[in-house]
This record gives sequence, structure tokens and C-alpha cells, in this order.
Amino acid sequence: MRTLILDASALKQLVHRVGLHDLMDNLTARLVRAFESFDADVTEIPPRTGFHYDDPTGLVEWMPLHQRGDKILMKLVGYHPQAPSQHGVPTIVSTVSLYDTSTGHLAALADSTFLTAMRTGAASAVASSLLASPESETLGLVGCGAQAVTQYHALSRCFDFRQVLLYDVDQRSAESFADRVASITPGPTRFMVSTLEAISAKSDIICTATTTDAGNDPVISLENGKPWLHVNAVGSDLPGKTELPLSFLEKSFVCPDTLTQACIEGECQQLEPDQIGSSIVEVAKSPNQFADIRTRQSVFDSTGWALEDWVAIELAIELAAEVGVGTSVALELLSADPKNPYDFVRGPESQVAKSQINLR
Amino acid sequence: MRTLILDASALKQLVHRVGLHDLMDNLTARLVRAFESFDADVTEIPPRTGFHYDDPTGLVEWMPLHQRGDKILMKLVGYHPQAPSQHGVPTIVSTVSLYDTSTGHLAALADSTFLTAMRTGAASAVASSLLASPESETLGLVGCGAQAVTQYHALSRCFDFRQVLLYDVDQRSAESFADRVASITPGPTRFMVSTLEAISAKSDIICTATTTDAGNDPVISLENGKPWLHVNAVGSDLPGKTELPLSFLEKSFVCPDTLTQACIEGECQQLEPDQIGSSIVEVAKSPNQFADIRTRQSVFDSTGWALEDWVAIELAIELAAEVGVGTSVALELLSADPKNPYDFVRGPESQVAKSQINLR
Repeated sequence: MRTLILDASALKQLVHRVGLHDLMDNLTARLVRAFESFDADVTEIPPRTGFHYDDPTGLVEWMPLHQRGDKILMKLVGYHPQAPSQHGVPTIVSTVSLYDTSTGHLAALADSTFLTAMRTGAASAVASSLLASPESETLGLVGCGAQAVTQYHALSRCFDFRQVLLYDVDQRSAESFADRVASITPGPTRFMVSTLEAISAKSDIICTATTTDAGNDPVISLENGKPWLHVNAVGSDLPGKTELPLSFLEKSFVCPDTLTQACIEGECQQLEPDQIGSSIVEVAKSPNQFADIRTRQSVFDSTGWALEDWVAIELAIELAAEVGVGTSVALELLSADPKNPYDFVRGPESQVAKSQINLR
Repeated sequence: MRTLILDASALKQLVHRVGLHDLMDNLTARLVRAFESFDADVTEIPPRTGFHYDDPTGLVEWMPLHQRGDKILMKLVGYHPQAPSQHGVPTIVSTVSLYDTSTGHLAALADSTFLTAMRTGAASAVASSLLASPESETLGLVGCGAQAVTQYHALSRCFDFRQVLLYDVDQRSAESFADRVASITPGPTRFMVSTLEAISAKSDIICTATTTDAGNDPVISLENGKPWLHVNAVGSDLPGKTELPLSFLEKSFVCPDTLTQACIEGECQQLEPDQIGSSIVEVAKSPNQFADIRTRQSVFDSTGWALEDWVAIELAIELAAEVGVGTSVALELLSADPKNPYDFVRGPESQVAKSQINLR
């Protein structure tokens, strides 16, 4: 039994061969199908849990998924706001593993840092396509870090944005954004560093992807938002951390990616159960039933769902096989005789002198 | 950032260089120290949880551990009783990963199939050294599969057994046991396929390591056990599955490896809280206080604890560095600019034609 490894090099080659656009388009299309066909009896996804710590603030969480009769996915994701400045690595670093449900064998291991960024963008694209105005021309980005790049990328594949308004507490992040996405920008698009007030007033779609701390004030007020404003709230991902004002949530259709988790970590923390709308799965299964939401204010409460990671890694593995990238190792030491873990040992170990162990 | 990989080949080389005996002795000695010095404020270990399924029966569980300011361990372990006959692999297949708590980076990945078998043996050796009669001469093995090999190995490093009595529902397992352990048997030891009655009556120490089903009768009655009989109950590892009769547990000092988990998955499921003795950590911290238990009947309720896996992988990594085995990969796709997940992409992606996606 071999373990497929999709490391940084394999994923880079995969992107070069497939292209970022095709990869994102594929991912977005598959995500739609995954939401449409989701069946909780076939795909079991408990809420994620993990270790949270201070000094410095950080967390590592695990996101398990069980595809019955097939595989178990285990994604480990770290969130360390100090990592970019202290270690030069992204805030979110992640790996994903697939285990065989007939043996427990590790079938595949892959970087998920890149795939998480992409699938989070793709999820917002799906939600926006279902809930935002199809004529959306102005995108607002609040928080212009790594996640904003894939939010922009995924959304720009589904909408024709004329302008993108940018805000970040770190002005340099807002200023450098246009350069970072230059190679993936589809056509004439105006990028402007802006204010929260202007973003709120002018945007058709807003993505919030910030590292605001738990207990902070909302990252944007949205009081003067357009009647059809759709917000992808991407940054709330741990208990106590939210980005949007309660006043906006209360008057909006709030669509969680996964209800239980959104009530623990997402904007839904702020809401009573009867204030929460249908989930993205319910909307995707009956899009016409929710078509009127595109003329109303709405929020996609994106906490990040293991189903999205399942779709992303399945796609990556398929594409890797197609383009011929990836390596494999014989990871588990599985003896030829399953009843003898030592059968690989050659020669009489009994020649080794018995150590004198005194355990007491 | 590199990820160390200790695969099957690396572990085999490590064993050949270090020797099975030295490896087991080191592991046992370190486990004693880990129990003695365990501090729940430094090492956080939630009970394991996982996906359990039928048809065929199996489970995959995850065992997380957080060593504050250092690493997070995540062990994934599969238990599939049909795996040996259907897939030619052991019942228990496992991998272990270590994540850096400052970034979420996967620091190391290793097979844990082999290490789990070894550390489970080592844990019984520690418990037996603390709770069994030091003059124990007869070992009984109920269940003679892979786990029994390391139970025997670890215990034979701490006790001078004159005879080993063997029972397995699959007679061939009992019959083949002596051959499987020939190379690790320290001196003149008599191996005899036996009956449950004889094992119960004649043994000073018994290890039960069976794949009995949940809800089954006890695997051995133990009514006629010696007054100082110590039992390492290794096989109970999921809700409903137990190996020992309540009557024996009630009159014995029952020492769980970790109380919360033992009450969910171990023999402690059968007991009221006031019938459960001190844990292995408490006993290891004050061995003299529990010295009288060596003259009484006792049970080590071994469900398998992530602390043992932490000790095992830390030791394996140290030894691998010493003897120069193991490989490494750059797993995570960490862009040079932590704010741009696409910065590795060369050339204008915008040349790619924009796909026509219709998500609705």
C-alpha cells in the first residue's frame, strides 16, 4: 500500500500544467455539484474542534469527514496571526490526509494551504452566484491578505467587476493588492484603495477576510449598503471572532456554510436560530426558491467546511494523476505476516544482551 | 519548512541499527518517566473520538495531544478486524503526525502501526512492573495476534518468564506464536498452547489482546486466578467492547491508562467510579504507595493513550536523527509572499481564456 504525496512541488507543477483559471473553474463547478448532491447519510462531517492557545495567539484545528465506504478525510489547519510577520508564512497553514476505511491506511497526504485558499474563494463564488445580484459590478475587499486574493480570483470568474475597492488595516496590503492579482485579472478592472464607508456604500458584493480579534467591534458598519448587497464573511472562524454588525445580520438573509459550526465560530454566533437562513446546501439544492434573495441583502457565513476540502483534494488527486505529478511512499510498516509486527527483522535479536532495566 | 517522513523503510533501518531490544527498553524507560512527570497543564490530551461503522465493522479514530509551546500530535488509528484476512494487513494500522504550534506546519509524519504495537507492549510492561508480582514466572496470552507479540516482548524484558501459556480462538495463532517470537525470546522459555482454564489458574500475569465483539461474554473467566494475578487488558478499545468479567474487576485494583477514555472504551465501562483505582500516572508518581497491589489482583485497563504515542514518536525521531534515517519533503505550498498564494505562478495567467461558467 502506497501513500500519495502531493507536496509543494507537485501542486506547483499541477497549477502550471492545468492553469489557475481552469483549476478555480473546476473547483467552483464541482463545489456546486457537491452542495447540490450533499447527503448527510453518506457524508458525515462533525464540527471541527482543536487546540486554541494564547501567547502568541493561535490554534490548530482538525476537520474530519467520513465518506461512507470510501475514505476519511482529516484536515489539520493552523491559524496563527503572527506567522506572516514572525515566520514569513501565511496566517493559515494546512495539510489534508485521506484514510482508507477498509484498513485505516493513509492513502494520500497533501498540502492544503494552497487548496484551502482556493476552495474558500470558490465557496464564496458559489454563494455569490446564488445570492448576489448577477449584475454586480463593484467588489469590496475588507482585508487584503492571502484569502482576499482567492476571493477575488474566484468571484472574478463568475462576475464582470468594473472596480474593486480595497481596505486593510495595514495600508500596504491594500496598496499591493492590484499587483498581486495582476496576472489573474481578466480584463479592464479598476483597483482602488478605499475607505470602509465607500466600500459599504458602493459595493454590490463585499468579502471580509480579516484577522480581527475575538470580541472586537465589527470590521465594517454596512449601514449604508445597497439594497442588494451580498457579503461573504470569510474571517470569522473561531469562537468569539465575528466581523459583521448584528444590525446588518438581522436584516439580511444569513446563509451558513454549515449551521452547527457557524453557530460556534461564524457570524451565526450573534443570531438566534430563527434569524438564520437556509444553509448553502439547501440553497444550492433549490436555487429558484431563493432567487429573490439576489435583490435583497444577504450574507454567506463562511466558516470553512470539510466538504469543500473533500472536493478540493479529490480534484487535486484526479488532476495530479492526469498530468502525472505527485510522489508516493510506503509509509506504514506492514509486516508480511499481519500477526507479527517484527517479521521484517532479520537475524537473531536474542544475541543482543538483555538490558538491565529497573523501572521501580 | 521541511516535513520529516519516517516511512516503513526508515523504521526498518532504524530497528536494524538500534535493535528491537534497545528500542523496547528505551521506550519502556521513557514511558515510565513520561507517566512520572505527566502534567495535564502542560500536556493536553482530549479523549479520542472517531468514525465507527459496520459492514464491515471498523473504525478510524483520531488521538490528539497538545504539548504546550511545542507540538501538536495527531494520531489516526484504524481498527478493522477483517483487514488481516481480507487485505493481508494488521487489524490496527496507524499513522502519526506532529504539527508546529507556532505555524501549523506539519513537522513530521510517521508510520505508527509499528510504534503503536511497541508502545502498547511497553505500557503493559510499565504497569506490570508497578502492579504485578516481581517474581512472576508464568505469562498467559489470551489472543495471540500482532499485539500479543509486543506484549510478550516488552514484558519479557522486565520479567523472567519460565513459561508462556497461549490461547486464541484461532488455534493457528496460538500454535504459531512461539515461532513468531523466537528471535526475541531471551532464554529458556516454554511456550504451550493451553486452555482458558489453565491460563487463568497458572498465570502470574495475563495479557488479553483479542478482537472480541462489543457485547460478547468475557474472553476469560479468571474465577480461579492466583491471589496476585495481574491482567493487562489491552483489547477493549471501543464502546461496548470489554474483555474481562465484572466479578474479577470488582475484586481487583483496576488501573486505567487514562480515566475518561477508559470509562468510554475500556474495562472501566463496567464499573462505577468508586470501583476504579488510581490511574497509571498516579501509580507511577507514587510507586511505593501502591506496592501492596503487587500481592493483590490487579488490572491495567489499557485503552491506548496519546501520551504513549508522543513518547514513541519523539524517541523514533531522536533515534532516526542519530542513525541518519528518514527523508523530508517541502510539503506545504508556502508562497514567498505570505499575502499572495499565487506568487509562484510565472507568466500571465490572464492569457487563459475566461471559461464560461454557469453556476445557476
